Amino acid sequence: MGNKLAQDFEKIVGKENVFSSEVDRHSYSYDSAVLKSVVPALAVKPTSVEQVGEIVATAYTKGLPITVRGSGTNLSGGTVPDSEDSIVLLTQGLNKIVEINTEDLYAIVEAGVVTANFAREVSAKNLFYPPDPGSQAISTLGGNIAENAGGLRGLKYGVTKDYVMGLEFFDKDGGLVKTGSRTVKCVSGFNLAGLMVASEGTLGVIGRATLKLVPPPKASKAMMAIFKSIDDAASAVAGIIASHILPCTLEIMDSKTINLVEDSENIGLPRDAEAILLIEVDGHPAQVADDAEVVEKQLRKNNATSIVVAKNEAEKTKLWEGRRKALPALARFRPTIVLEDATVPRSKIPDMVRTVNDIAKKYNLFIGTFGHAGDGNLHPSILCDKRDTQEFARVEAAIDELFNRTIEMGGTLSGEHGIGTAKSKWLEKETSKATILFTQNMRKAIDPKGLFNRKKIVSL
Amino acid sequence: MGNKLAQDFEKIVGKENVFSSEVDRHSYSYDSAVLKSVVPALAVKPTSVEQVGEIVATAYTKGLPITVRGSGTNLSGGTVPDSEDSIVLLTQGLNKIVEINTEDLYAIVEAGVVTANFAREVSAKNLFYPPDPGSQAISTLGGNIAENAGGLRGLKYGVTKDYVMGLEFFDKDGGLVKTGSRTVKCVSGFNLAGLMVASEGTLGVIGRATLKLVPPPKASKAMMAIFKSIDDAASAVAGIIASHILPCTLEIMDSKTINLVEDSENIGLPRDAEAILLIEVDGHPAQVADDAEVVEKQLRKNNATSIVVAKNEAEKTKLWEGRRKALPALARFRPTIVLEDATVPRSKIPDMVRTVNDIAKKYNLFIGTFGHAGDGNLHPSILCDKRDTQEFARVEAAIDELFNRTIEMGGTLSGEHGIGTAKSKWLEKETSKATILFTQNMRKAIDPKGLFNRKKIVSL
Repeated sequence: MGNKLAQDFEKIVGKENVFSSEVDRHSYSYDSAVLKSVVPALAVKPTSVEQVGEIVATAYTKGLPITVRGSGTNLSGGTVPDSEDSIVLLTQGLNKIVEINTEDLYAIVEAGVVTANFAREVSAKNLFYPPDPGSQAISTLGGNIAENAGGLRGLKYGVTKDYVMGLEFFDKDGGLVKTGSRTVKCVSGFNLAGLMVASEGTLGVIGRATLKLVPPPKASKAMMAIFKSIDDAASAVAGIIASHILPCTLEIMDSKTINLVEDSENIGLPRDAEAILLIEVDGHPAQVADDAEVVEKQLRKNNATSIVVAKNEAEKTKLWEGRRKALPALARFRPTIVLEDATVPRSKIPDMVRTVNDIAKKYNLFIGTFGHAGDGNLHPSILCDKRDTQEFARVEAAIDELFNRTIEMGGTLSGEHGIGTAKSKWLEKETSKATILFTQNMRKAIDPKGLFNRKKIVSL
Repeated sequence: MGNKLAQDFEKIVGKENVFSSEVDRHSYSYDSAVLKSVVPALAVKPTSVEQVGEIVATAYTKGLPITVRGSGTNLSGGTVPDSEDSIVLLTQGLNKIVEINTEDLYAIVEAGVVTANFAREVSAKNLFYPPDPGSQAISTLGGNIAENAGGLRGLKYGVTKDYVMGLEFFDKDGGLVKTGSRTVKCVSGFNLAGLMVASEGTLGVIGRATLKLVPPPKASKAMMAIFKSIDDAASAVAGIIASHILPCTLEIMDSKTINLVEDSENIGLPRDAEAILLIEVDGHPAQVADDAEVVEKQLRKNNATSIVVAKNEAEKTKLWEGRRKALPALARFRPTIVLEDATVPRSKIPDMVRTVNDIAKKYNLFIGTFGHAGDGNLHPSILCDKRDTQEFARVEAAIDELFNRTIEMGGTLSGEHGIGTAKSKWLEKETSKATILFTQNMRKAIDPKGLFNRKKIVSL
């Protein structure tokens, strides 16, 4: 079918933007989740938003499953094609920042704009786009929206959802659905922008987004606190929030993570610490000073053995380097890393840390934990080798127990990585049978042929 | 059918909570929008969330249209029954604040809790629930969510949507759909809470909500600025936002509104001003001082003839009294008030003010304008008598022109009052044909019998 199929899309995007060689197809068969890859029929790269509508309409008419791919940084399988007759729609050609409006504090972007590039352009105009998922250097804004990406600043500034003012997306017939506005307030019709956020490519294909911008903070202060006991570190987090301080970032790394980062980077992290907290407060200079004082008081009260405050930008960058290296350092240690993001109410962080350690012992697994302690969003990372079937069976049992415990604690399966195919089997337990049925029913009306990432979230 | 029908619901909620007398039925036939009233078959008042599911299932099985009613403060017709066989579901019995969690900064409430009561309880625990729709003294949180209510603090703090972390609602079969979480981050399944916000009772019936709370600001400062020219006042608003100040409130009142407030209240507002701005900044005390300085500079730069700063809480209360009296003062002047909320990007406020004045002249109408200048959400209020058919035809022509001009300016039909039946005929113009079809298609799957507020937003 190869050639004939390619021709249909070549008519829309040109020969140079349809990829059907075996190598190309394999490149788009997986994402960053630990899941079986599925090789698609071909990949199509539109170079204008209008072409997206034509591609969708063509694929839908022909009954071809469509999986949209930004940069493939997805951690729950949202970018893995459903089946071998799938087409992968690449958004990287849709990379225009249409407008950055400094008077009304919004921007209009195409779906394929890289998050960090956008944040940089916004910053150059002395404005601020806060969402900063770990993959921001390569992730796309369209992917961030489809997954409702979080990041380090979620505690104070919220997540991608909180910055989507409006969307234009293409429905199954290639019709352009417009939702939201350039205005701060808008209740003109259903909140379809809200529905599209976190919908993981199951309802339509995003073309453009209107994003909210905010004035940048005038000052900030970063510090690292070292703890002999991870329970103390967790209590310090709860103490800070209960003091009504909302740091822009409040991150934790456990001893396993600290030591692996040191093994690979040698940047002087305290190897004998059971945990470190990395904290940044921002805002008005006087508020920063006051907040930092309260934070330091809570850290000391909870037995921090040492507090290092960054004295300048260079020291701040160095402080954050360790945190940024956490994932790559862990990933290097064993062939497979299963990066979880079960999330609990903030006050349950101490319970969560104990739970993860208990599970690691029970299943004889190496689990390094780091993450966004301030918003209860930890990333317990199981280091293993998925080719070792015995070990991987223990990994799966451990994850199952982790999710059950998370739900018991009033938490959620996924804070920021999505459900995809990786977590869909647990979703009913967190929600209800009626929730699954409501969702399937809604999806069937929007995607009657089941071609938009059919297997994701709740399989149709 | 009266008696038999009443009995079915009496079995669920008891005889004392089913209202089918003529007087009762007329009480629930209208809301605060200027629309034809529709007398329902009866009203049912559940006293527990669980009863809501039973009521919905019973009504849906019997094919009875269901309109949910909080306090009936709706300004676009969302609480007006669809037809005379409708049942009205009253939420005022669902008034429990289930939990206010001071560690994790959330609350769980039932749908019928009155907004201001909730804000007061939260405040007593030294936390803050920012959304403050004009009707907060009597409106319910469930109604606020169904309409995505805004308010004076939208500019800095956002609207109801930004505080809904999770929802439990009943679907057509009375099944309990659970969405969202008590955690700050949650991407577990579709963002159905986002979809329910602003859905105006068309997708299901809200039982409980999990709402986000924030630490209260430590200080605030309020001031009034008087302008000889409304253009200057509008330019001052744009100047403040462009200076990267986000006041917690930034309100405008035009001379017609000022004079009507003075006529009825005599509180000393400047009758010869063409406009006044009422501004409050909040946050850390040092930030408040700095922000107030920048605001005053912008006010003077734009020719404010006088700036009155409130020196204490009593003076602040007095300053806001005039603004709170705007709507009742206007409403008293003529038999009918048509309160609009067409909304534009903030920088378009000067254009919008001119447009409203041009329209008033062209159609020979009295339009008083006040509202949330900081977020572009003005409330041009047309004072008239709907029994005067000639005058009311001019009102309708004026509204039509207002909406067309709003959309041309990149604005939206409704900032915070909803579409209901009042604005649905303009919705396609703001969005697209595909948007309407997408919405109808989705609704038909969720509500195949068309019983959930069928005529609202986009008629089924």
